[in-house]
Amino acid sequence: MTTPLFQHGTLALLVPGLLDGTLTMADLLTHGDTGIGTGEGQDGELIILAGVPYQIDSTGRVNHVPDDFTLPFANSHFAAFTPLLTATHRDRRDLQAAVLAQTHSANTFFALRLTGTFTALTTRAVPKSARPYQSLAATAKRQSVFSRERTTGTLLSYYAPQVFDGVAVGGFHSHFLAADHAFGGHVLDFATFSGDVAFQQFDRLEQQLPTQNQAFMTHDFSHDAILDDIHHAEN
Amino acid sequence: MTTPLFQHGTLALLVPGLLDGTLTMADLLTHGDTGIGTGEGQDGELIILAGVPYQIDSTGRVNHVPDDFTLPFANSHFAAFTPLLTATHRDRRDLQAAVLAQTHSANTFFALRLTGTFTALTTRAVPKSARPYQSLAATAKRQSVFSRERTTGTLLSYYAPQVFDGVAVGGFHSHFLAADHAFGGHVLDFATFSGDVAFQQFDRLEQQLPTQNQAFMTHDFSHDAILDDIHHAEN
Repeated sequence: MTTPLFQHGTLALLVPGLLDGTLTMADLLTHGDTGIGTGEGQDGELIILAGVPYQIDSTGRVNHVPDDFTLPFANSHFAAFTPLLTATHRDRRDLQAAVLAQTHSANTFFALRLTGTFTALTTRAVPKSARPYQSLAATAKRQSVFSRERTTGTLLSYYAPQVFDGVAVGGFHSHFLAADHAFGGHVLDFATFSGDVAFQQFDRLEQQLPTQNQAFMTHDFSHDAILDDIHHAEN
Repeated sequence: MTTPLFQHGTLALLVPGLLDGTLTMADLLTHGDTGIGTGEGQDGELIILAGVPYQIDSTGRVNHVPDDFTLPFANSHFAAFTPLLTATHRDRRDLQAAVLAQTHSANTFFALRLTGTFTALTTRAVPKSARPYQSLAATAKRQSVFSRERTTGTLLSYYAPQVFDGVAVGGFHSHFLAADHAFGGHVLDFATFSGDVAFQQFDRLEQQLPTQNQAFMTHDFSHDAILDDIHHAEN
């Protein structure tokens, strides 16, 4: 029995801007010591490492996250990574392909943790929107983009099989935190990575939906371009 | 905290015929006393009511299901239904629309249990295929269709939101068992229903994938027409 991957909300609910915080950070941490997410109103990019949650806000600052911080969408799991490979100046696409070839896990959920040095790492973070919340497409237009020619830190990815695209990000969804806690965010791209790649297989997704949230329960998704907007905003 | 809906496998893995039985009935029953599914090789249509699993095979017979019977795809949950409405000669589409309007649960997972009398109820059951297993489209061509002008029994539906289409059946997925255990199967249609409609909300899907099954792990889904084939075969 492997540990499960916990997910609260779906990527799809970000598309029309159903951005109420429907889970507290304290609750999220009961499902894992490792994770990613965003805050109410898409308030920055979150990453949880070794039980400590960090928020990268739209100014690029890395902030402490209190227990009562709320989130519309998040993943977490209890880390039990196993070493997969050691990389030396590996290209991003090449590294992702190597992981899929070595693990045969493309049809499943798994986590990947890259610890080492990245070149040309580009991240983004979006500014919090207030009610009435903005759509994913509108929020993405206001995003801040940050980059470092060379940075050392931890990149955490969750991989979801394509049939779950829309529920999660089909493929790799990655957030980064620099070792000095001075840089991070949702990863848009990097050129090369040198360091350790660790892998954790999940055989179970625990998918929670915000059934107590009226905006979510009464929303008509049939007019939202879920996949188009996600692919545009998340890649 | 509501009880979760458990799902083993996805509808998508039936499309290319990844039909190895990767969960035993005994295991499925640890996740619920109520459920639906199909056997290894798409061996009939299963329904679990009050902890007892029944199989409707392609001859239309209702069979006892042993604990070591294996399944590639199944749902189960612990029944805690609440009465929703009483129907009198309600049309199927009209009844489904009324349930969605009354519960505001179209964006979530829920179960529906209809106990009463149905007119023009049509079901299907498919014959088991041996290795190499047939695709969902090929199996559907060999299905047996059964109908009753009037029958009394229990119809169990699981509803999945559209963003989960392919993972599950987006919308209602229904199996039936007659009160006399002489008729049942995967529900294709019915004209009217008179009786009690009970509802159970889920706020969590426990999605398990067969990560120990080599055929599943190594399959390339990118050439499968997942949604087209499911919509053709399941409706």
